[in-house]
Amino acid sequence: MPTPTTPQEACFEAGIKFGSLYHQFAGTPVSPSSARSLATAMEEAIENQPHCTDVSVAVDEVALAEAIEDGGADYTELTGRFLEVELAIEYEGVRAVAGMELVDGYPLMTLRRVEHPDD
Amino acid sequence: MPTPTTPQEACFEAGIKFGSLYHQFAGTPVSPSSARSLATAMEEAIENQPHCTDVSVAVDEVALAEAIEDGGADYTELTGRFLEVELAIEYEGVRAVAGMELVDGYPLMTLRRVEHPDD
Amino acid sequence: MPTPTTPQEACFEAGIKFGSLYHQFAGTPVSPSSARSLATAMEEAIENQPHCTDVSVAVDEVALAEAIEDGGADYTELTGRFLEVELAIEYEGVRAVAGMELVDGYPLMTLRRVEHPDD
Amino acid sequence: MPTPTTPQEACFEAGIKFGSLYHQFAGTPVSPSSARSLATAMEEAIENQPHCTDVSVAVDEVALAEAIEDGGADYTELTGRFLEVELAIEYEGVRAVAGMELVDGYPLMTLRRVEHPDD
Repeated sequence: MPTPTTPQEACFEAGIKFGSLYHQFAGTPVSPSSARSLATAMEEAIENQPHCTDVSVAVDEVALAEAIEDGGADYTELTGRFLEVELAIEYEGVRAVAGMELVDGYPLMTLRRVEHPDD
Repeated sequence: MPTPTTPQEACFEAGIKFGSLYHQFAGTPVSPSSARSLATAMEEAIENQPHCTDVSVAVDEVALAEAIEDGGADYTELTGRFLEVELAIEYEGVRAVAGMELVDGYPLMTLRRVEHPDD
Repeated sequence: MPTPTTPQEACFEAGIKFGSLYHQFAGTPVSPSSARSLATAMEEAIENQPHCTDVSVAVDEVALAEAIEDGGADYTELTGRFLEVELAIEYEGVRAVAGMELVDGYPLMTLRRVEHPDD
Repeated sequence: MPTPTTPQEACFEAGIKFGSLYHQFAGTPVSPSSARSLATAMEEAIENQPHCTDVSVAVDEVALAEAIEDGGADYTELTGRFLEVELAIEYEGVRAVAGMELVDGYPLMTLRRVEHPDD
C-alpha cells in the first residue's frame, strides 16, 4: 500500500531539514574566527522549522585552517567537508535522528535512528 | 527497533532533495519571462543528486505577475508560493514521490507515495 | 577614459559584499528568538571577504513578529524587509560605506559615502 | 566630498549583481549535462535586477568533468572556479562592465570598464 506511514513522514521531514541546512548555508564565507557564529546561526535557523527539535552543527576548524592555508585568501566557502551535523525530528510520536559526516573524504547524510512507540 | 528501513531511507532521500531545491533557489530574482529557465535549471540541478530520478517544477506565472504588480519592481524573489514541485526517488527498489503545493496560501511539502516490492 | 578609478573599484567591492550578504542569507528560516544569532553570523561571514572592515546587521524583530502572526507558522523566511544593514570597505586608501533600508516598504541598497585622500 | 558620483553608483550596482549571482547559485548541484540550463537561468535571473542589461555566464564543462572524476559522485557543487561571467550595468547614462575569471586558480571579480558621457 503506497500511503506513507508516520515513521516514513518523520524521515521525510528529517531529510527536508538536512537539505535546507546544507543548501541555505553552503557557500558562506567562513574562517576559523567566524566558524562558531555560523554554526550557532545554522542550528537556531533550522530549529525553527516544523517538527525539528534539535540541531547540532560543528565546523571543523582544523580542516578550515588547512583549506585556507592552501588557498589564496583569508577565508574559504562553507562546504560539507567542514561540517559535522546531527538533527532530530519529532513527528506524531516518532523520533528520527539524522547526521552528516565525512566518509572517504565526502560528506554523507544518513538516517541514524527511527524510534517509535510500536517498535 | 530503531534501525531505519529501506523505505524510510528512501523518504529521507526525498526530503533532502526537497530541502535542497527550496533553499538553493529561494530568493532568486524571477519574472514571468525568466520563470521557465529557472524551473528548468531547478529540475536539472536536483536530478543530479543521488537516487533522484525525476523532478518537475512549475512556476505559477500568474501569481508571479500579481506579486510584481503589487511590488515596486519588475521582478520579485522566488518563494514557495510561486512553485509547484513533484519529485521521485528510487532507492534500493523503493520509489518515493513527494510534492509541494499551496495549502491555505502556504507552500506545504508532502510525501505522496512510497511504493516498494513487499507491498 | 574607461579604466576604473580606485574609488570606483571600492564601490564595486561594496556592491559585491551587499549582493553576497543578501543572496547568501535570504530564505533562511528566522524567528524573533533566532534573529540575533543570524545577524551575528551574517556580520562575521561577510567581514571575511576582502577589503570589508565592518558589517552591521539588525533584524527588525517587530516586523518579524508581525509577519509570523500573519502567516501560518512559528517562523518566516529572511527577506530584505526585515533587515537594516551598513557595511564599510577599505580599498587602497578609499573608504566606501553602503547601507540597506526600507524605502516605501521595499529594501533599497545605497552607496552612502565614498571617502578618499584626494577629496 | 564624500557624496557618491553617478559612475561610483554604477560600479556599486555592478558589484551587487556579481555578489547576488555568485551567492545565489554557489552550491547548486551541477554536471556537464546540466551546466547549460544553469548558466541560462543565472543569466536571466540576474538580468531581472535593476539597471542590469546583459549577463553572460559560461560554465567550464571540462573543469567540471575533471572535478567530478576526482570526486566520488556524478556531479559536483557549483563554485567560482567553474565560471566565467561578464555583466553590464547601465545607470543614469553610465555603463559599467564587470567580469569574473580565474587568476592563479582562484576566481576574481573585477571591474573592467566604466564608460560615461563626460569621459
